[in-house]
Amino acid sequence: MAKSSDPPVVLVHRPTSMDFMDEILSRNFRIVNTHTSSEPIPISISTQATSARAFLNIGMLKVTDELLSHLPSLQIIVLTSVGVDHIDLSACKRRGVAVTNAGTAFSEDAADCAVGLLISVLRRISAADRYVRSGNWGKSGDFQLGSKVSGKRVGIVGLGSIGFHVAKRLEPFGCIISYNSRSQKPDVPYPYYPDILSLAAENDVLILCCSLTDQTYHIVNREVMDWLGKDGVIINVGRGKLIDEKEMVKCLVQGVISGAGLDVFENEPVVPEELFGLDNVVLSPHAAVATPGSLNNVAEVALANLKAFFSNRPLISPVQLD
Amino acid sequence: MAKSSDPPVVLVHRPTSMDFMDEILSRNFRIVNTHTSSEPIPISISTQATSARAFLNIGMLKVTDELLSHLPSLQIIVLTSVGVDHIDLSACKRRGVAVTNAGTAFSEDAADCAVGLLISVLRRISAADRYVRSGNWGKSGDFQLGSKVSGKRVGIVGLGSIGFHVAKRLEPFGCIISYNSRSQKPDVPYPYYPDILSLAAENDVLILCCSLTDQTYHIVNREVMDWLGKDGVIINVGRGKLIDEKEMVKCLVQGVISGAGLDVFENEPVVPEELFGLDNVVLSPHAAVATPGSLNNVAEVALANLKAFFSNRPLISPVQLD
Repeated sequence: MAKSSDPPVVLVHRPTSMDFMDEILSRNFRIVNTHTSSEPIPISISTQATSARAFLNIGMLKVTDELLSHLPSLQIIVLTSVGVDHIDLSACKRRGVAVTNAGTAFSEDAADCAVGLLISVLRRISAADRYVRSGNWGKSGDFQLGSKVSGKRVGIVGLGSIGFHVAKRLEPFGCIISYNSRSQKPDVPYPYYPDILSLAAENDVLILCCSLTDQTYHIVNREVMDWLGKDGVIINVGRGKLIDEKEMVKCLVQGVISGAGLDVFENEPVVPEELFGLDNVVLSPHAAVATPGSLNNVAEVALANLKAFFSNRPLISPVQLD
Repeated sequence: MAKSSDPPVVLVHRPTSMDFMDEILSRNFRIVNTHTSSEPIPISISTQATSARAFLNIGMLKVTDELLSHLPSLQIIVLTSVGVDHIDLSACKRRGVAVTNAGTAFSEDAADCAVGLLISVLRRISAADRYVRSGNWGKSGDFQLGSKVSGKRVGIVGLGSIGFHVAKRLEPFGCIISYNSRSQKPDVPYPYYPDILSLAAENDVLILCCSLTDQTYHIVNREVMDWLGKDGVIINVGRGKLIDEKEMVKCLVQGVISGAGLDVFENEPVVPEELFGLDNVVLSPHAAVATPGSLNNVAEVALANLKAFFSNRPLISPVQLD
């Protein structure tokens, strides 16, 4: 029988690489590690786990209604991601389970990555790197010209914390910023487009920073790419399923759009092989937020949410469940 | 015999790829193309060429005292580069030949490239691109973490037009800027370091934006790299000879410094092969200013300098000859 002075039990699911979290957590909680692979939690969860009131889910493990049914004492799921598309939020709501996410812990790193991908695509930095490494510079002569960053019209899809950081970074490059979002933001100087088609038509670049929901699934479809046009570039640091990937591959191969910088894909870690041979794309393995600094930030946010929960204080970064 | 109403003769040396300049120039001048390879101009220059008062030198052709001796009517050399290290300036001065450069036509593109290289090195964007293209993501799992851009202390070597554009771009990333320059700039908010050793000691990143002179040759030597230290990164969009390349390769291989983003090299197009296998470097074939936008800008500046010269108006971007 647990005494009230015992540290609270926290069920933890994490990738092997995140073992540094165990030490941080065990200063305040009793950890029950489920297991550390990316496989679903097995049905046979230990008695300890079923008594856990909090579940720290580090990584992208899917939380289904079925999984929740094995955790009857659960009151809160603490996530280390910004996106919550791997969580059955309506099941959480129905069962009275709160959810917290990474809040803004990743915003700067994700924005840095988005800008890095954009410059790399426009100025062909990764392609240039391949070209020099191939030893062809001396033989083939001049490298194909890139395209200016300065003066580009950039449409940001989702002007949350990440999107706003992207906009602030691109301003001194002389980029002209506009955005699309669920609703117009007050106190934002950038023009608002209520639909993504007109955002695509009016811009040279689309940067996807929004979360994946039923409404944003395949928000970038063939029609959007047609409107973006042959000089258009797409940057995605959101989720792979924001783009109709099959159509995007076609558009990139056929020159319907000019290029893409992609940190996320529809079926990670599977990446369409047609992209591997293209010089007009830059590919990144869902690493937009993967710096040690970010991991520390997110560990702090997760810890703060757990502490708030167990001391009945307001949560730091709660996710709306409706 | 030339009539005064004849268009002035301009001797032009350009790479083959810059043939678009011929049309622009021939609206106002009679062009004498020397030849379009990167080889030195042959001794046997045509009579027309020897009568030319202006020489438009597009690219990096060396202008020696010997070459000048074959151009007795020459009064001005119009360059399309920012750097003038390929021109014997003291010979020009002695012979009364004025020199103009690209002025600030390239500054934005060069700054964009510097920032792109920096993000690509810190966040391992080019390495990530290689990793995904290799098909290893699914097999090897997580990609090695990069390092945050936000909060990095960045020392800019040479706070001219390019360096200043770099600083403005890095501010919203939360980078902390300081600089070294021949002299302290008035009205600049960034701390000034009179010597590069202390700049290296106090910063995480050095970005080389200065011109190559006798004073800046190998300004980044082994000692500077020792002071920069094992987490330090060097970005070079200036000239290859600003860095002791042999020592830099050693430092990169041995981990004396952390990484480098290099658009220029000591003996272009030769790049040390030891760099080809390193994941902590990003290599670019002297393409920092190679966008169509930049080429238009520089064509305009060159044309404006030529027109100013032939109508006895002040030159647009004269180079100081002492």
